Parts: sequence; C-alpha cells; structure tokens
Amino acid sequence: MPVYKLYYFNARARAEGIRWLLSLAGVEFEDIRIDRNDWPTKKQEMPLGYVPVLEVDGQKLSESQAISRYLANTFGFAGKTDWEKALADQYVDVVYDILSAARAISRAPNDEAKAEIKRILIEVDGPRILGHFERCLESNKSGYLVGDSLTWADVVVASYLDSFIDRISPEFGELLEKFPKIRAHLDKVRAIPQIAAFIAKRPKTVL
Amino acid sequence: MPVYKLYYFNARARAEGIRWLLSLAGVEFEDIRIDRNDWPTKKQEMPLGYVPVLEVDGQKLSESQAISRYLANTFGFAGKTDWEKALADQYVDVVYDILSAARAISRAPNDEAKAEIKRILIEVDGPRILGHFERCLESNKSGYLVGDSLTWADVVVASYLDSFIDRISPEFGELLEKFPKIRAHLDKVRAIPQIAAFIAKRPKTVL
Repeated sequence: MPVYKLYYFNARARAEGIRWLLSLAGVEFEDIRIDRNDWPTKKQEMPLGYVPVLEVDGQKLSESQAISRYLANTFGFAGKTDWEKALADQYVDVVYDILSAARAISRAPNDEAKAEIKRILIEVDGPRILGHFERCLESNKSGYLVGDSLTWADVVVASYLDSFIDRISPEFGELLEKFPKIRAHLDKVRAIPQIAAFIAKRPKTVL
Repeated sequence: MPVYKLYYFNARARAEGIRWLLSLAGVEFEDIRIDRNDWPTKKQEMPLGYVPVLEVDGQKLSESQAISRYLANTFGFAGKTDWEKALADQYVDVVYDILSAARAISRAPNDEAKAEIKRILIEVDGPRILGHFERCLESNKSGYLVGDSLTWADVVVASYLDSFIDRISPEFGELLEKFPKIRAHLDKVRAIPQIAAFIAKRPKTVL
C-alpha cells in the first residue's frame, strides 16, 4: 500500500472530501494540518504554492478535484461508464460554485458586501444548485447522484454541504431543509461507517 | 457514431478546448453559437442554466471540464495510468486559474480595478503558473505535459493560452514569450492537422 500524506490547513474546506474518500477507502493517511505560522515555509515545498496537496509515495499532486478524482479512480468510486464519470465530474464542479460564493463572503471588504453575496447565494444560486441536485436524486431513484451505487460525487458533494452548514450558519442549513432528498443524502453519506468514524474523531473546525 | 451538439456563445472562452478535442477526435459536431438575444430562451433548455453544454444523443452534460474530460475518456486522451490522469486533471485546473483572472478583468467595475487585476495576473500569478508548466515540460522531456503522448491537458491548456493572447493583449503574449517551452508547446498543439483545420475555419472572435 502506498504512503499517503495529505497537506492542508486545520480546516475542512477543500480537503474534507479528500479525507472522507481516504477514510472510505480504508487506507491509512497522514492528515497534516499546517499551522498558519508555518505556511510561509511550507508553501515553498508545494509544487504550485498552495494546498491541498496529496503526496503518494513522495510524489505530490495539487488541486482538490484532481486529488479526489485520483482517489476515486484508484479505489473504484469514479463511476462505471464514461458517461457516469462525466456526471460525477459535473456534480463536483457544480458544488464548487457554492464554495466560490462561500469564499467570496469570507473575502468581501465589509459587512454590507458580505451580506449581499450571502443574499445572492441563499436566494438565487443556492436554490438553483440544490434544486438541481434534488431533481437528480428524484430522477435517478437509486439514492445516489450517479448510477446505482456510491461515487466520489456523493462523497465530495456531501462533504461540502456538511461544511457549508457551519460556515454559512444558520442560512445554509435552513435552505438545505427545503430540499429533503439532498438533505437526506447528506445524512446517508455521513452515516457510512468509515466516514462516520472519521467525523467522530476529526478536529472541530468552523471552516 | 453518437450525435454531438455543443452549445455555447460565439466565443472561445470555456468552449474552445472542447471544440479542439472534438476536432482532434475526428467526429462531426454541431457547433451551436447562441446569439446573446436568444439566450434568455435558450437558458431554460440548459440543465443548470449555463453553457457550455455538450449534448450526446440527446443527453446533456454541463461544465466545461467535465465535458472535456468525457471526450478525453471516450477518445483515449485521458492519460495512460491513474497518476497520469490525475496530472492531466491538475494541469487543466491550473490553467482555469488564469481564466478566473481574465474573467475578473472583464467584470471589474472600473478601469483602475481592471488594471490592478491585470497587473497581478501579469506580474504574479501568470509567471507562477506559466513557470510551473515550463518546469513540467522541462522535466517530462516528451514535449507533452503528461507521459509520453498527447493528452487532453495539452489540448485544453493550449486552447486557453491561445485565447488569452488575444483577450489580454498585448501583455499575456509578451509574458508567454518568456517561457519558451510552453510557448513552443502551444504552437505544436495548434499545428496538429485536425486542430489547425478547425482553427482555419473557425469564426474570428476576441474572447
């Protein structure tokens, strides 16, 4: 078994889906959470100057989606056909659009700007994106986003929704209650034994 | 052979790499360029309300990266191993960071803000990202970004650099000249006969 090291900060954000996938696969991994004070030094060791980075037997890979998809391919969660793989990719790209909004809230220059970005997320883009997931779960019927079994899209989408509930609180959690299928899907993924075990022992973080 | 329809605007931007991949694969496709005046109506027909969308035998797929990777998997340009696939994914994600900056320039509220975003792109992020590609080409030696043959990462990265030269003119072209390996790589991809034939007949657009 290769040696896996995951480099990120002490936050869920872009790394939590990777941690869930590694847990699901049942592999040991070093969950390295870089202290902000050490970042200027550690940054130099990252191929593109940012994290998350997954190191596999000493080889480093950047970009959270590329890392998650690599684990999906390696451990058999990518989807069974090229079309299923494409749908999984699409759903992960879509949930990243919520992340972009969440990041924009954090970076907004003042409270008024923050409130306006949050309003657009909760009233416009959030409902559009969650509505899309809801319809997918309605039409797919298996209880999974893609095909008839769990893919990395289920895991990554759930990991983000899980973090947004805390990050954009209480608005995002309230919004999510309006979409019962994707809400139940989140609970189902969190209850997968390997993922539940990871959640139970992970550090508590807001982001 | 399936029937492929690509929906986008009359622009390169997020669709050009898809067009190059379809051309490279030698498949017929309908290159539908939606007029901005028709967009409010056409938007309703898109699963997530945006384009590009690839329709394959009537099934629609959203998200430019998901579409491009689907074509790569279908036509054998994804990379030969899971690690090669991951590196290809990573490079495509990285070039999208330049796209984000290019879009931020277009959307900036005034000339001063545009100039500042462009300055950061040309002086900081552009050199960092192009420097990364340059080092990859230096260490990989095959003349391709990943492994020993062409992958979709070569095609998508080149398609974006090609469009940035016109979109962020003249600064991006001047910056690119400082990275001779990735500059030559762009010319090599553009010269692939199927891609060169597509470029020769494509509509002329700034974006």
